[in-house]
Amino acid sequence: MSARFHITYHVRCPANEIEARAQAIAIEQSVEMPLAAIEDARILSEIVGQVAGIADLGRGVFEVRIALAVETVGEDAGQMLNMILGNTSMHACVSLVDVEIPAELAGIFGGPRHGLEGLRARVGAARRPLTATAIKPQGLPVEGLAALAHRLALGGLDYIKDDHSHADQAFSPFAIRVPAIAQAVRRAAAATGHASRYVPMLNGDWGRMQSELRLARECGIDTVMLAPMLSGVATLQAIARDWPEMAVLAHPSMSGGGIAADLLFGTLLRLWGADALIFANYGGRFGFTPSLCRNLAGRALAPLHGLRPAAPTPAGGMELARVPELLDFFGRDVMLLIGGSLLAAGSRIPEEAAAFHRAVERYFP
Amino acid sequence: MSARFHITYHVRCPANEIEARAQAIAIEQSVEMPLAAIEDARILSEIVGQVAGIADLGRGVFEVRIALAVETVGEDAGQMLNMILGNTSMHACVSLVDVEIPAELAGIFGGPRHGLEGLRARVGAARRPLTATAIKPQGLPVEGLAALAHRLALGGLDYIKDDHSHADQAFSPFAIRVPAIAQAVRRAAAATGHASRYVPMLNGDWGRMQSELRLARECGIDTVMLAPMLSGVATLQAIARDWPEMAVLAHPSMSGGGIAADLLFGTLLRLWGADALIFANYGGRFGFTPSLCRNLAGRALAPLHGLRPAAPTPAGGMELARVPELLDFFGRDVMLLIGGSLLAAGSRIPEEAAAFHRAVERYFP
Repeated sequence: MSARFHITYHVRCPANEIEARAQAIAIEQSVEMPLAAIEDARILSEIVGQVAGIADLGRGVFEVRIALAVETVGEDAGQMLNMILGNTSMHACVSLVDVEIPAELAGIFGGPRHGLEGLRARVGAARRPLTATAIKPQGLPVEGLAALAHRLALGGLDYIKDDHSHADQAFSPFAIRVPAIAQAVRRAAAATGHASRYVPMLNGDWGRMQSELRLARECGIDTVMLAPMLSGVATLQAIARDWPEMAVLAHPSMSGGGIAADLLFGTLLRLWGADALIFANYGGRFGFTPSLCRNLAGRALAPLHGLRPAAPTPAGGMELARVPELLDFFGRDVMLLIGGSLLAAGSRIPEEAAAFHRAVERYFP
Repeated sequence: MSARFHITYHVRCPANEIEARAQAIAIEQSVEMPLAAIEDARILSEIVGQVAGIADLGRGVFEVRIALAVETVGEDAGQMLNMILGNTSMHACVSLVDVEIPAELAGIFGGPRHGLEGLRARVGAARRPLTATAIKPQGLPVEGLAALAHRLALGGLDYIKDDHSHADQAFSPFAIRVPAIAQAVRRAAAATGHASRYVPMLNGDWGRMQSELRLARECGIDTVMLAPMLSGVATLQAIARDWPEMAVLAHPSMSGGGIAADLLFGTLLRLWGADALIFANYGGRFGFTPSLCRNLAGRALAPLHGLRPAAPTPAGGMELARVPELLDFFGRDVMLLIGGSLLAAGSRIPEEAAAFHRAVERYFP
């Protein structure tokens, strides 16, 4: 009997249809054809998905557990996503809420190469929460972006990342932007004595990304960002595999629809190699609930076959005034990301950034 | 004034909130920061998204049109998706329903390199609809898959594609599977005199895909499949750009959530280079409506700055008995894909495939 792993969905449908719907998902996510047309006994017993459980959650929603064969995943994160959601993503009444991670898949993907502790070590932090911000807006010429990054880094922040909209536009091409900002942040770090990191956004296909990674490495950069649901989760796996010295911040662009955010960020992106998980925090511009955010952070940090914990990184409309609340909520093991509201400080950006960093650094005794 | 293009969303929210929601989308999808913190006048006038229109569609749904700057897209399909949906994908109450394609973006991406006419030419078809099927299930050893492909090709079908679940699993590794199936289909084509094509599924990151493409080319293959929403749309663009001799079938895995299917398949995937657009047909396993399918096919074939028409390819639970209905509905300019139900014919697969192909080939006088 080959190994199976359990996938859990929430399905909205009439009670008298749920058994057929569950069976349909099990087939859709495995062989996608009528079972009567399958002659091979091994496929019927070992490859076809099996309904492992159905529970009525009330209000017309059912929890459906499907057991899929581990061997259908191969060694590709994209194929794993294809198997656990794939075609079923087209059913708006179904969402993916949990995936059991067997030791075999943990071994194949390997999780974060650095994780929260690696991100702390890069900036000389012991057990404290980390701080991050974003360089915005797109459209600023490179000199403006570099000047802004310099002022943010003068505040002593840990990670200063590109806005996710920075790609390779004519107004700030990657090959010009990244060296300029890297130098500006290094100059500020030399002044403050704090090892602030600049984190450029990667874009394009894996070929383009690799040339971006090479340039980043030449600039002394050791931490990068990508949006795995936009670039394809195989690109996240590829960085962790081929560029293990680079730490990776995962950005949530295109992460909506079909997968519960706590599972996607806290478990799947961590499994596939993300060191930090940027997500839309509760009380910000997006509708995430406190309990979803707590679950996400809990998953990112939970023991999982020896994989390193990833840094939960709440973001999206955060403000300095919320730092105590957020640290009470998330505890020490977190990276707080404040973007736009820091930038609103105008000429006082270094002071505002420093106030943010101090508030975080000194919160836990 | 720089060029802008219009993006249309459907937004579900209370009427007294829609103006603020529309403005929030315009900012989220452009600069993602408080406008008060932007000092650069050019960014305010040329980069910040603008609300171009709001219409009440009734039942609590509004149509919101946003004008974004073309220059924010750069030349990357991933970045285009990042700008037109990106973070807004996390708002379940917002869906992307239309994107105006300016000539500049059509010129950058170039659309299908072969399109419907190229796919017809490959199999010597004049103005008739095309036929396609899928090789299933995963888990069959390579010899079984090759034997099945051979029998399907004996029926004279045009395109015989991998199931989208075929990746690089141990039970049928790409490097062994693809040459074996290619040879089996070529052997059948020599017997029938019809130039049936085998279409392998690509997976993994772009580096891996390119080694798969090289192997496919060595096997005489000129048509491949990928799931752009799974692999990242940049991989679709990369094939069209770097492997222009390959035709590409786009598979809908992971296409659910956030983008109207007619727009995604008929316009966006065509723009980014897909020659055929496999979508979940009405009356099959997925909930697509006839009007959505009609709109999708209409978009795939409509004039668009000289881009080639792509082949609408309805699939998902199709059956031979529906051929007349589907051809009446879609007309000549279509590729019909029947997968699982052909395979149910067992030992009569060649005859059933031939009946399918004949029914399609002879339908239009």
